[in-house]
Amino acid sequence: MNFPSNIFNSHSKEDGDFFLGMTRILGFKPKKLAVYKKAFLHRSANIRDEDGTPMNYERLEFLGDSMLGTIISKYLYTEVPTGDEGYLTKMRSKIVSREHLNELGKELNLIHYVESRIPKSHFGDNIHGNVYEALVGAIYLDRGYKYCEKFIHKSVIVPYVDIEQLEGKVISYKSLLIEWCQKQKKSFYYDIYEDTGNDAVKHFAVKLHINKKIVSKARATSKKKAEEIASKRAYYALQNKIDKE
Amino acid sequence: MNFPSNIFNSHSKEDGDFFLGMTRILGFKPKKLAVYKKAFLHRSANIRDEDGTPMNYERLEFLGDSMLGTIISKYLYTEVPTGDEGYLTKMRSKIVSREHLNELGKELNLIHYVESRIPKSHFGDNIHGNVYEALVGAIYLDRGYKYCEKFIHKSVIVPYVDIEQLEGKVISYKSLLIEWCQKQKKSFYYDIYEDTGNDAVKHFAVKLHINKKIVSKARATSKKKAEEIASKRAYYALQNKIDKE
Repeated sequence: MNFPSNIFNSHSKEDGDFFLGMTRILGFKPKKLAVYKKAFLHRSANIRDEDGTPMNYERLEFLGDSMLGTIISKYLYTEVPTGDEGYLTKMRSKIVSREHLNELGKELNLIHYVESRIPKSHFGDNIHGNVYEALVGAIYLDRGYKYCEKFIHKSVIVPYVDIEQLEGKVISYKSLLIEWCQKQKKSFYYDIYEDTGNDAVKHFAVKLHINKKIVSKARATSKKKAEEIASKRAYYALQNKIDKE
Repeated sequence: MNFPSNIFNSHSKEDGDFFLGMTRILGFKPKKLAVYKKAFLHRSANIRDEDGTPMNYERLEFLGDSMLGTIISKYLYTEVPTGDEGYLTKMRSKIVSREHLNELGKELNLIHYVESRIPKSHFGDNIHGNVYEALVGAIYLDRGYKYCEKFIHKSVIVPYVDIEQLEGKVISYKSLLIEWCQKQKKSFYYDIYEDTGNDAVKHFAVKLHINKKIVSKARATSKKKAEEIASKRAYYALQNKIDKE
């Protein structure tokens, strides 16, 4: 199968939707839309370029995987000045673990844009992480290093990287918070409900009440995760109080 | 042992020499000289920063290793548009192999700047590659991605990366050239001599004569390598002729 011309036609309705979707996910406007399209082409779509070379996201995944590792390395180097090489390597593997990348891809609902001949429900979990890496590779080619760094900060480091938790010093913010509430004789309640909205993937929202007041909110793809994020937010909001005990 | 103050004193004679040496190796002026000094600190020097954290090049090596992989990935992605993920991964491993990095570090004579308590003659070969990676890490911190990319192009890609040779399509430029000379009934002569100069590591220079005219020159740490580089240069210089046969 040859490459369908509409994939590179920047005036089609489909392209307009794809452009808007990418802009929302990336936080900036893509320049070379074709590169991003490639990031979502599964090999099963069996698309080839003009020379007959198979086109799919695997080459971009190779590039993005490497860039992701570099940005995380730089972050860890700067954030943990006392960590030796072994420590930095271990922390990096935790952050870029297959499981973690799959979660990231799922949160961004990247599978929505995947072009394949296989029904999406047949894919395993790894598609999410693979496409996330390919997307990083596409940003690298389209906008260079700086934009990659920004995107990785926004999508990985800010929401997910917590060095204390990675080190196992904090196992769960939920248990930390519950312990504190019990000690302080405060009531707490996780008000959790499904909130999928327009997303293709199921989402849950939670409001965390302490002494009948909402102290934090969160939204994620699992109940457990939404509760954990809300707990962490509440923990940092209350940290002054907790530390003063 | 605390960090000796002269290491950060940018007015010392030693620092002036180090600055000049780095400028020569890098091809640009370093801004934060202290970062480059760290790139040459072996753990045996047992130097610590003000907080007592051990200071040596291992953390920078972690950073440089990752950046090197990313730049090579980008290069391969662009240069070999038909190579799939497996091919790109294989080529990258060949380029950043321990053996290859050791050669690079040796060529730049980086060991000259290493600070250690172990006599330099006691180090194995890996010190050369490790310090090369640490130097890349230092450039990344001091001048950012773009300068790293330039340095890696200049020190790795331009002089050493030959995709045809990595793929095994060309085993040796020397044999290619000799074959051509014999077919063309041209005389050839590799004029090779030791040319160590001020370098700590032994070097050889070669002048390649074809029909009694010098067609190329090269200099390297082994005779074989110098001959190979000179042959490759001659090959490209004569390529039009060779291709027309």
